[in-house]
Amino acid sequence: MTVINAKVGSGKYPVLVSDNSINELIDFCDGYSQENVVCIVDEFFKENDNSLYNELNIFLAKYKCLYLPGGLQSKGLEAYSLAMKWLLDIKLPRDGVIVAIGGGVIGDLSAFVASTYMRGTGLVLVPTTTTSMIDSAIGGKTGINFQDQVNAIGTYYNPKAVFMDVRFLLTLNTRDYFAGICEAIKMSVTSDAAQAKKLLNNSTLLASNNREIASLVDLVIWSTKIKLFHVGDDPNEKGIRLTLNYGHTFGQSIETFYGLYQDHYRHGEAVALGMICAASAINSINQSSLSSDLLDFTKKILKQYNLPVLISDQPDCLFPSVEVLVNNLINDKKRTSQGNRFVLVPSIGTSIIQYIDNKKVIASSFQSIMP
Amino acid sequence: MTVINAKVGSGKYPVLVSDNSINELIDFCDGYSQENVVCIVDEFFKENDNSLYNELNIFLAKYKCLYLPGGLQSKGLEAYSLAMKWLLDIKLPRDGVIVAIGGGVIGDLSAFVASTYMRGTGLVLVPTTTTSMIDSAIGGKTGINFQDQVNAIGTYYNPKAVFMDVRFLLTLNTRDYFAGICEAIKMSVTSDAAQAKKLLNNSTLLASNNREIASLVDLVIWSTKIKLFHVGDDPNEKGIRLTLNYGHTFGQSIETFYGLYQDHYRHGEAVALGMICAASAINSINQSSLSSDLLDFTKKILKQYNLPVLISDQPDCLFPSVEVLVNNLINDKKRTSQGNRFVLVPSIGTSIIQYIDNKKVIASSFQSIMP
Repeated sequence: MTVINAKVGSGKYPVLVSDNSINELIDFCDGYSQENVVCIVDEFFKENDNSLYNELNIFLAKYKCLYLPGGLQSKGLEAYSLAMKWLLDIKLPRDGVIVAIGGGVIGDLSAFVASTYMRGTGLVLVPTTTTSMIDSAIGGKTGINFQDQVNAIGTYYNPKAVFMDVRFLLTLNTRDYFAGICEAIKMSVTSDAAQAKKLLNNSTLLASNNREIASLVDLVIWSTKIKLFHVGDDPNEKGIRLTLNYGHTFGQSIETFYGLYQDHYRHGEAVALGMICAASAINSINQSSLSSDLLDFTKKILKQYNLPVLISDQPDCLFPSVEVLVNNLINDKKRTSQGNRFVLVPSIGTSIIQYIDNKKVIASSFQSIMP
Repeated sequence: MTVINAKVGSGKYPVLVSDNSINELIDFCDGYSQENVVCIVDEFFKENDNSLYNELNIFLAKYKCLYLPGGLQSKGLEAYSLAMKWLLDIKLPRDGVIVAIGGGVIGDLSAFVASTYMRGTGLVLVPTTTTSMIDSAIGGKTGINFQDQVNAIGTYYNPKAVFMDVRFLLTLNTRDYFAGICEAIKMSVTSDAAQAKKLLNNSTLLASNNREIASLVDLVIWSTKIKLFHVGDDPNEKGIRLTLNYGHTFGQSIETFYGLYQDHYRHGEAVALGMICAASAINSINQSSLSSDLLDFTKKILKQYNLPVLISDQPDCLFPSVEVLVNNLINDKKRTSQGNRFVLVPSIGTSIIQYIDNKKVIASSFQSIMP
């Protein structure tokens, strides 16, 4: 059992990582009276009698639970309203606690609910996917989509504790499993060259047919620590937290093409392509051999984790032209008069923030993911 | 011009009070680019060409404005959703600012919108009623009603600045004018005996047909300071802030009888009756002459400000029996196993927090407002 003490803004809370954290969750909730604990749970766990989840089922049987679909249909005002109504119906007191069990959608929704129910009630996060363990459960962001805009509504709100039990990752489907790992690859490339190398060399331990428990625990501990390092003193995203957006500005142009729902491209897959574009961008700005190494490295590591390196790598869907992608990027609401803001990697393990207003550079970056 | 430096939780912001604060608001907003400032405004000010509001009209003409009814119909998820859609349509950036111009409903709604739009954008409050200047605009609470529960949804969120221009109070209808002043009477009784005496003696200066500007400025400055004193180190209501709930536990039982909409009883009017009950409660607990003075004083001062002292003082509406009111109180969601929590006043200017579980004491307290 590893306990990481998170400090985010003025808040502090423990993040527990192991291959049996559910037991710690049970102990934690025993500290509350039974009627003060409620769960919002991915409906995937409702009638799942996989032996892996026996402890979870015993836990869930003890408390009032709201089961919601884990997909993006639960990340909106309708699901928010439904959850709020449920909490008022069952009369959860202000000093109660909401335990969110599921992936990014369940976590983001439940956290927004907790932050606004009677001006804030307790929150415990139990992420169950690579995306949520490696990325969304750490950092205090809550959010729902509105009017087709991602996280248009949300708050910053810290949980009381986060329980990460890597056994949940063993039954995740291959595609979601790797899409989440992409966020770890991203952080290693911007901030930890040794970890980037390790991820490249140890890919068989984390391969979909292997998913070695000890390697998963290691990966989640490392990613929690590195994300907290970026988030810790910058919860509201003014400085160092921006590094986490590596690959995201290019990636968002791809996501804009495919719309809010991630059937065609998962967020992590769009970020993978965004990292290729970003490596290509610094290539055309710097012309150094270092950055050319970066492009090769990025392609190699993404391929090892079944992630796309060309926009055509996702079968069965149309893909946008360079012109469309450039246009999406120019219309990004975050664009300023200086151009779009990018995180760029001068050499593996380091990063800089740079504005680019040169359309040719942007177009040639997108060209690098065209078949 | 008086500037009070508010410190609430980890935040700091100025509260400006005068008889021409609109000019300061204009200067403040000139510090932003025009497209980064938007206003959410009580529709009362939309086509009001009262000469008093000339400066306001010039200000409003400069910025994009959303006009909403000032009544409780705007304090819900529907108005919230409408305001959010409007902000996304006009593309307010995250570093923009929402100026809320109106009474408690417009302020509470706009503040909740600002606290959750893209995880938080700037907020400026321009309260225009006694209730909002004396009470709701100070302290960082935001909120909307949901499922007939008052402020079931909300956050704690500080504005960038508050501009209080007492000229707004000159055109407020008599009933709302006095209902707001009740919150100042309440704070004087719990926390400042000299101010309580002053309010009793100077009531003609604040009378509805007088509303002397200098006295209004004095009253708003005093109430801002005393509320900030209670809120400052306790933004999340664990200790001293509770004092502000004087009269509210009894008052809420009355409000519960009349329902969410305040046609029959304004919040301030219910608090007035709640103060009578609370004075009567400490009488039956303490049996001291001091607390008997309190009951006399409370009745006298409330009458001078046209506030009810008997539940039958509001004409044209049915009123509940003592039994109904006791029942509402027993079913209060804040009730604990120790009973209901009350703020009580042992002598004018001081307060204590006490749990009461004795139904007879509660019933005899309610008896004191029966005709």
